[in-house]
Amino acid sequence: MSQVSINENEVDIVIGAVNPDLTSFMEDWRPVFSRFHLIIVKDPDLKEELEIPEGFDVQVYTKTDILKITGSSSSSLFSGYSCRYFGYLVSKRKYIVSIDDDCVPAKDDMGNLIDAVSQHVQNLETPATPFFFNTLYDPYRKGADFVRGYPFSLRNGVTCALSCGLWLNLADYDAPTQALKPNQRNSRYVDAVLTVPARAMMPVSGINIAFNREVIGPALLPALKLEQEGKVRWETVEDLWSGMCVKVVSDHMGMGVKTGLPYVWRNERGDAIASLKKEWEGVKLMEEIVPFFQSLRFSESAVTAEDCMIELAAAVKESLGLSNSVFKRAAEAMLEWIKLWKAVQT
Amino acid sequence: MSQVSINENEVDIVIGAVNPDLTSFMEDWRPVFSRFHLIIVKDPDLKEELEIPEGFDVQVYTKTDILKITGSSSSSLFSGYSCRYFGYLVSKRKYIVSIDDDCVPAKDDMGNLIDAVSQHVQNLETPATPFFFNTLYDPYRKGADFVRGYPFSLRNGVTCALSCGLWLNLADYDAPTQALKPNQRNSRYVDAVLTVPARAMMPVSGINIAFNREVIGPALLPALKLEQEGKVRWETVEDLWSGMCVKVVSDHMGMGVKTGLPYVWRNERGDAIASLKKEWEGVKLMEEIVPFFQSLRFSESAVTAEDCMIELAAAVKESLGLSNSVFKRAAEAMLEWIKLWKAVQT
Repeated sequence: MSQVSINENEVDIVIGAVNPDLTSFMEDWRPVFSRFHLIIVKDPDLKEELEIPEGFDVQVYTKTDILKITGSSSSSLFSGYSCRYFGYLVSKRKYIVSIDDDCVPAKDDMGNLIDAVSQHVQNLETPATPFFFNTLYDPYRKGADFVRGYPFSLRNGVTCALSCGLWLNLADYDAPTQALKPNQRNSRYVDAVLTVPARAMMPVSGINIAFNREVIGPALLPALKLEQEGKVRWETVEDLWSGMCVKVVSDHMGMGVKTGLPYVWRNERGDAIASLKKEWEGVKLMEEIVPFFQSLRFSESAVTAEDCMIELAAAVKESLGLSNSVFKRAAEAMLEWIKLWKAVQT
Repeated sequence: MSQVSINENEVDIVIGAVNPDLTSFMEDWRPVFSRFHLIIVKDPDLKEELEIPEGFDVQVYTKTDILKITGSSSSSLFSGYSCRYFGYLVSKRKYIVSIDDDCVPAKDDMGNLIDAVSQHVQNLETPATPFFFNTLYDPYRKGADFVRGYPFSLRNGVTCALSCGLWLNLADYDAPTQALKPNQRNSRYVDAVLTVPARAMMPVSGINIAFNREVIGPALLPALKLEQEGKVRWETVEDLWSGMCVKVVSDHMGMGVKTGLPYVWRNERGDAIASLKKEWEGVKLMEEIVPFFQSLRFSESAVTAEDCMIELAAAVKESLGLSNSVFKRAAEAMLEWIKLWKAVQT
């Protein structure tokens, strides 16, 4: 499947363990994960011991490590689904692939196991095309090309910062949608990767993503936490927020974000109806978040992802902070994160 | 396949006949076309009589009709591939579907004949979502929905102005790409429809499209004609130009453009290597056209597609007209077209 040869030393697979028993998860992924280095971060709220099968090149981080490296004041950033960000922080590799622990490898239309890691790395290694939309999807894919009319000056593309994969079976809907359509499952395998155009915003799900840590790492951060954030995806918004950050920073820096392949198979978890009450907070926040990010512009002096994130934190505090304290805390968390990022990376 | 019930009285199928014998084309499309009204416009440069099989509800327009309705000074707008625009001009229906006469119905992954007309009308009848990208593609499709994080305030969508279909077998590449990869054929059936985000530009191919004539009709016009325009697709740019017009007008008016399904099967035609010399003109022009359209903004007083096109013609003349006489002529053709449109529609 892979058209790019993957250098395993450039890839970290980061798993946030919000459940203690990773046995079946790891076994299902063994054919794909076994050649890579894994970083598993245990949710600091989790009391039980992790169960991880033998035979993987894995480094496990727990609450103790989080406290040691980030200090007690910052460690709360990394609770629940946000524990994975600690893995992003300590990784030294170029690419990070991160998949939720309720997902297993999907199969393509031919019944073949999908190597999500190879597809993600391929998405990141081949250029993105955010400045003009190619109607035949990824022009760098085997058998594809740029369509008539695509300017030749744009055919080299730009660096791909983020690759967002999708989900078969249980798709990433919000709690109201899940509650309204309890039996809806996604069975449509769309065989495409595309670059989301510059200036277009999107809901980035953290379930199945990969990114180029060297260019965009600081923008994938735990910042927005709901008052009643729970332990199922649809009760979180951290990934949506960090996805908006990645998109605006990528747009500013002339990089691209891709979406589409690879799919993962997402298993059932949680009770949508029970989540409904909590989720509305996140749903309401998006009504403010989206226009804010759509109108955001960075200064010309912001030339790195870190620069952008510092400007962004200030803009969040100023524009959103007054309307809701959750945004004020998000702005503070962003500054805290950048401080940590600089400290750990140097 | 269709989820919308189609009112045949709202649809015109417009075929530009650049070849005289439409027999096999029409027979292949009979299962799809036979319930609809067809407008066939004969390329005025074509000397031979058209051959059209029996059993269709078809109205044929020839050079005589073009001269009668548009006058001798305007009739040159409608030569070659641009003859189809005459059909757009005289149609009285809400939706127009237009397919090149070298395309036949494609089959989906299950081997079923694709009803391209139903799919196009479905694309046009269901809303578009240009203001936020839905990672699971068309949210209105059966089995799909808006992904977590998609603002509820945007979930009603907006009017879809244009539906761009794709091509199996011979894809719509330019002559250099065809010449470089003579054996490349598109065999990937991507089972998706998506809205191209607002402000993102794209190469609209005229091979397989449909649009809402009532809202966007004036923007689909014959304006940009190459000096050596030929009788194969890759020697034309009229569709690229009119596609850029549609996109900027749709963006301004808060409407959407979709791309993806339906596919058609595109047969071989023409000699890419022989076309190479001519095509470079079009390729070079795109380098100026794309930045022009990307930076274009309409005034607030432009509230209809006609208003927009008049402003656009003036902008073309002013910004592009000096660099190349082909743009000056395009601006004049645009004004000419709007005059015709107003005359014929009233």
